[in-house]
Formats: sequence, C-alpha cells, structure tokens
Amino acid sequence: MSARNLLLLSSSRLYGHGYLEHARSQLEDLFKSKNVKTVLFVPFALRDYDKYTATVRNALEPWGYAVEGLHTKADPSKALSEAQAIFVGGGNTFVLLRTLYELQLIEPIRKLVLNQGIPYIGSSAGTNVATRSIHTTNDMPVVYPPSFNALALVPFNINPHYLEPDANTHHKGETRDERIEEFVAYHELPVLGLREGTSVRVVGNHAQLLGKLPAKLFKGNGSTEEFAPESDLSFLLQID
Amino acid sequence: MSARNLLLLSSSRLYGHGYLEHARSQLEDLFKSKNVKTVLFVPFALRDYDKYTATVRNALEPWGYAVEGLHTKADPSKALSEAQAIFVGGGNTFVLLRTLYELQLIEPIRKLVLNQGIPYIGSSAGTNVATRSIHTTNDMPVVYPPSFNALALVPFNINPHYLEPDANTHHKGETRDERIEEFVAYHELPVLGLREGTSVRVVGNHAQLLGKLPAKLFKGNGSTEEFAPESDLSFLLQID
Repeated sequence: MSARNLLLLSSSRLYGHGYLEHARSQLEDLFKSKNVKTVLFVPFALRDYDKYTATVRNALEPWGYAVEGLHTKADPSKALSEAQAIFVGGGNTFVLLRTLYELQLIEPIRKLVLNQGIPYIGSSAGTNVATRSIHTTNDMPVVYPPSFNALALVPFNINPHYLEPDANTHHKGETRDERIEEFVAYHELPVLGLREGTSVRVVGNHAQLLGKLPAKLFKGNGSTEEFAPESDLSFLLQID
Repeated sequence: MSARNLLLLSSSRLYGHGYLEHARSQLEDLFKSKNVKTVLFVPFALRDYDKYTATVRNALEPWGYAVEGLHTKADPSKALSEAQAIFVGGGNTFVLLRTLYELQLIEPIRKLVLNQGIPYIGSSAGTNVATRSIHTTNDMPVVYPPSFNALALVPFNINPHYLEPDANTHHKGETRDERIEEFVAYHELPVLGLREGTSVRVVGNHAQLLGKLPAKLFKGNGSTEEFAPESDLSFLLQID
C-alpha cells in the first residue's frame, strides 16, 4: 500500500479565476487533512525562482499558508525531507525535469512521497513530472534532459491543459488528440487528457477526478473514453 | 563555400491546397535546376512508411517525378549517396531524429548535402531535423532520441507551422511565442518562425524566404523582427 497523497492539477490558472483560485478547495482539503501550514515550493520550471515563489506565496498566504522556495535552501534534499508538503509548479517540463536530475532529487522526492507520504501537489509541468514520464507534455523541448522518465508517482501519463481539436482552424499542424494518439501507438500505455480546471487526487491506491469537467482517457489499445467529474480513476493506478 | 542546396518547407499542407501543391513551383525550380527525375523519400517521421511514400508519390508523379522510399533500400547509406534528391517528410520530429540516429544516417546525410550538394527538401519535422537542433519543434516528445542535435545543414533553428498567439483563446497553456522565447532565453540563438505556406531556400551561402507570408525572426538577444516575403535571409547562415 503506497502512502502517496497527491493532487495533480492540469493548470494553475483557469480563465476567469485568480492564480490557483479554482483549486482552492482542493488544496485546502489536502492541507487540512495533513495539518499543513507551510508549503515547500519547487520553482525550477520557470527561470525567475524568486518571482515565481512570490506568485505562489501571494496566492496561498491570504488563505493562511506559508510558502518557502526550495531554491533558497542550502540542502534541498534535507529541506524536502522536512517539508510538510511539496508543490511543484508549472512552466517548461524539460527544464524542470533536467533540473531535478541535475540536483539528484528524483529518487529523494520519489521515496518521500511514496514511502513517507509527504503530500505532493503538481501543476501542469509539475503534474507531468509526477507521472511515469514526460512523453506527453505540451512543452517545447528547449533543453535536453538525461531521460524522459520522471518521478513515476503514478504509473500512467497525463496530458495537462488538455483541449479538444479546434474544428474551425485552418492550421495544418497536428491536433492534441493526434499527438497523444501517436504516443499511445508507440507505447500502448494510457494517457489521461486533463482539461484546465480539473485535477487528479490520489490517496494511497485510490484516485479521483476533481473539477467541473470530464477527463478524456486515451487507452493503451487506441480507444478513448470520457470520465465524468468526480469519477473514480483508481484503475489507472493498477498498471504495471 | 558550402555546396548545400536546400528547400525547407514549413508544412506539406496548406489550407485550400492539395498535398505539397502550394510548394509545387518551389519544388520544381529546385528539381529542374539539378535535372532531378527521381526523389528519394525519407518516411521515418510517420509510422506507415509505405502509405506515406505513396502519398508523396501521388503528389509528385503527376508532375513528372518518380518517388522511391528509403525504407525499401537494403543499404540506406548507399541509396542516399546515389540519390538525385532527398525529401525528408514531416510527422513526429522526435521519432524522425531517433530513427536517423539508429540507422546512423546523420553524418552520411550531412556530408552528402554539405559536401556533395545533393538537394535536400524538408517539410515540417524534415525541416526541424535539417537545422542545428530539434529544440524548437512543436511535436510531442513521444520517443527519446539520443540527442536533440540534428543535421545542422543550417546553423539556426526553425519553428515550422509558426502561428500567432490566438488573442481570443481562454486557454492558459503557453503561446507559441512564449515557447520560442523560452528557447531563446536559454540558448541566445535565433529561431525563424516559418508560417505555413512559406519556405526557406538555401543555395550555398545564400538563403531566401519563399511564399506569400512574412517570417518572424526571434533573435538571440530577445527581440523579434518580421521579414517580408522574398527577403534575403543569408545573414542567418553566418552564425557560428
């Protein structure tokens, strides 16, 4: 039985809402259940760590939570092991994953989350790196990480910011669905298309879809299925 | 003085046109200048090599050109060295580059194009791999190539299928411009945003923009500049 306690957000912003505002109740439910008062923020997916940490602090402090930046800690591994909760923010997934490898934080974070049950919140790129690999990110590969394998806190892939193909476009680039189907064709593994404003909450071996929109599952066999808000997604945790 | 003779298309399809139709005069100008009668097609960016080669054949045969698939050749290096022209088609850039590395074709193609002057036509992913690296592809990283370094037939990066941010979207994912600006911030190298229907023609040390739309250059210093159709882009070949 895994001790994991995850909240994987599609995005930190949702149209018409302030930063993280749409996910406030999801965040607070998690924080309150574990008596979290201080969040350790991992800002590596963007370039300005101080500014990014301030953005998160400005969102969470009014709700009663302190925010510290992992980049301000002399010993990141130690800081992670002492954290009440870890929040890995979005930005560029390739940059984020490369930095986690460079700082040798992949295994420490993985052990803390899976064995010690330290709550992990990811948003966008922070959600991508929480899954088995970053193969299904939308980001541009601006840097070359040593691997696409990620934290594997869950054994499936997520496509954050998932959105439908635009039927009206004249653009001839691949649609999001075509790109995800390409991944499935090569790997025969499922990808959860997570629309903005939705999240996956994982506690131990139980997973649930949160938010007001359905999620589209691209199955390993090439078929797809929509899951309604609040659906039980625990079956996705049983993949080997 | 490089012998290179390139036609780098943003895309093989343009709204309102048949496959490659918008680029017919660009292709035929190149083929006629070198008396090309048979094109060696590299279909590795898509999964069905036979079907993909047939698509290209169906476009080029009515114009009087034969098309052969590189995948049908027992000795790909030898086939490339005997080719009248090489056409590398679009699809997934990561898959294409990984396959070129697996078949050990990077150096052979590079030498044939730069030293022997064999005409190289690339489209979309085939254009990405012709540049210094695939860091500025739009594709999903569905497979992990051994490097993002590519053929480097030109010393700058291209973003194919370039398009403006959609001012009306409610979507909170990064815009294309933000993604490209991120690459520039990390590398301080220029990226040519090549809109669908446009191409770069390179002969030796001369480069020109072809097609009816301008191209947007993201400069290494972070500024941008639009270049009108038919602009001389030779300065982009002088980067070290």
